[in-house]
Amino acid sequence: MKPDTATLIERMLSGDRLALARLITQVENRTAALPAIMKAVYPRAHGAYVVGVTGPPGAGKSTVVDRLTARLRGEAATVGVVAVDPSSPFTGGAVLGDRIRMQTHALDPGVFIRSMATRGSLGGLARATGDAIKLLAAAGYAWILVETVGVGQTELDIMKLADTTVVVLVPESGDAIQTMKAGLMEAADIFLVNKADRSGAPALMAELKFAAHLHSASAVSPKDIDWEFPVLSAEAQNSVGIAELLVEVKRHRATLEAAGALATRRRARRREELRGLLLEEFREKVERALAGGDVGRTVDRVLEGTLDPYSAAETILAVLRLESS
Amino acid sequence: MKPDTATLIERMLSGDRLALARLITQVENRTAALPAIMKAVYPRAHGAYVVGVTGPPGAGKSTVVDRLTARLRGEAATVGVVAVDPSSPFTGGAVLGDRIRMQTHALDPGVFIRSMATRGSLGGLARATGDAIKLLAAAGYAWILVETVGVGQTELDIMKLADTTVVVLVPESGDAIQTMKAGLMEAADIFLVNKADRSGAPALMAELKFAAHLHSASAVSPKDIDWEFPVLSAEAQNSVGIAELLVEVKRHRATLEAAGALATRRRARRREELRGLLLEEFREKVERALAGGDVGRTVDRVLEGTLDPYSAAETILAVLRLESS
Repeated sequence: MKPDTATLIERMLSGDRLALARLITQVENRTAALPAIMKAVYPRAHGAYVVGVTGPPGAGKSTVVDRLTARLRGEAATVGVVAVDPSSPFTGGAVLGDRIRMQTHALDPGVFIRSMATRGSLGGLARATGDAIKLLAAAGYAWILVETVGVGQTELDIMKLADTTVVVLVPESGDAIQTMKAGLMEAADIFLVNKADRSGAPALMAELKFAAHLHSASAVSPKDIDWEFPVLSAEAQNSVGIAELLVEVKRHRATLEAAGALATRRRARRREELRGLLLEEFREKVERALAGGDVGRTVDRVLEGTLDPYSAAETILAVLRLESS
Repeated sequence: MKPDTATLIERMLSGDRLALARLITQVENRTAALPAIMKAVYPRAHGAYVVGVTGPPGAGKSTVVDRLTARLRGEAATVGVVAVDPSSPFTGGAVLGDRIRMQTHALDPGVFIRSMATRGSLGGLARATGDAIKLLAAAGYAWILVETVGVGQTELDIMKLADTTVVVLVPESGDAIQTMKAGLMEAADIFLVNKADRSGAPALMAELKFAAHLHSASAVSPKDIDWEFPVLSAEAQNSVGIAELLVEVKRHRATLEAAGALATRRRARRREELRGLLLEEFREKVERALAGGDVGRTVDRVLEGTLDPYSAAETILAVLRLESS
């Protein structure tokens, strides 16, 4: 490890926010120092409780996170916020909620806020988010709120990093819900209908409550705890419904802990993380192989259409010393 | 290769539809015979032209595919149809368009229609679709129409298998468009506004034409051909606009061929296919490793949280003889 990385880690562990920010930038950029950083912080990265907040664009997730942060700070708990924007892999455009609202907490040393956006692969983004969460945990933040825009597969992957997931919807988000209904049902521990003063809110809540009931009776519902997801209403802009949301988050946490499910789920998450890392390592090897070298002629024949990819894969795996067995 | 697989392939190549159907089932189920099947058919799998048809649920994709099939049959061209439903990985629920409409062609020996749904991983579905396309090509179908529901990442992956991609929208699909705009722009070669008799159609067409213009001037537009995607209107139910659609599909094909871009793109596609296969092979090795065996103790320590996954990955890669270098 370079001396400056070791120094950064030391400073981060003793509470230096700038050092923390720079380390998160390193995991975001997947620099060469990444394994060393994660090895060093790992032993101290297990204390935090992670709450995911997701939902379609315009649902008011940023405001919910802001008000939840204020509420937790009122209890003197420290809070780390990671706002993730998978957006499009094609344009790299950012559509994150208005970060300006979070400026309430800008001068509060008990709050650390960080946005993360796509750098290359979406899989990489989920892994970088997981690593950033560990850095925040090692830095001592007790609660970590992870906010993602949208309801796509990457967002669901990111939500798997959370102990409790809150899905924020508004009456207008109907179409997005339809598209991703099954995924949302799978990911959500709590539904929050925001902007609940709008017409359409009671109908949406009724629909979600019915869905909650069906889901908890279905085969896909996780059975490690007895939990039918609550459907709450809020007007986050006016701080209405946030206290009730925090009560439910804590009740979910207590339910997980009482059943031993928090530990079990974190084990499963670590398995996923290891799997992702191994695949990433191999992916890099494959990229190097496809770029030429020992198997260049084999690759060329595939590109010409004269060799089928199955035969080529056998040859290349043998060269990479991964003989099919 | 088992004798019955060899016989199936032989019968498929001589025009036996039942043999073709059974071979597609094998690629769909990713059976052990898959590499042998693909090796055998590969040399004959390059003749077909592949048209992708995608768009949000309810846009009328099935009807468009049905009418396009009829049109191509009117020119005595043979047509293979693959209708793919990535739907949700969680429920396995199917929301494919009404296949009954395709019964028009059920007795036509020049048309072969096949639905495919998620079996396990979504990545696997895209690969299975690619293999099914090759089987149809080897069986002699000149045009292959690939229909997918939705506008998510998996659908975009499947659309990468197509030489020409038609995105079907209806005035009501506004929200879905917003969410996936960048991805759709990237994937689409032709936009078709279906149900064009509805109010809202002119506005949608104007919006898409503006987007087409912006996109063709932007950095993300592929520059291997000079192509600003046309925005067409149709009432597929009444066969209105289908002749014009086919004209544009053929014009796109001719443009690709004239620029040499069809060959270049197919090379790129074969590279992606090889990459996917290699990663799939390795994924299986990783699954076996995580299930125990030589590295069981290392995995256990990660699950307990006592060993960081980066260190564990190094150990496991060494055991899998993929030393980090």
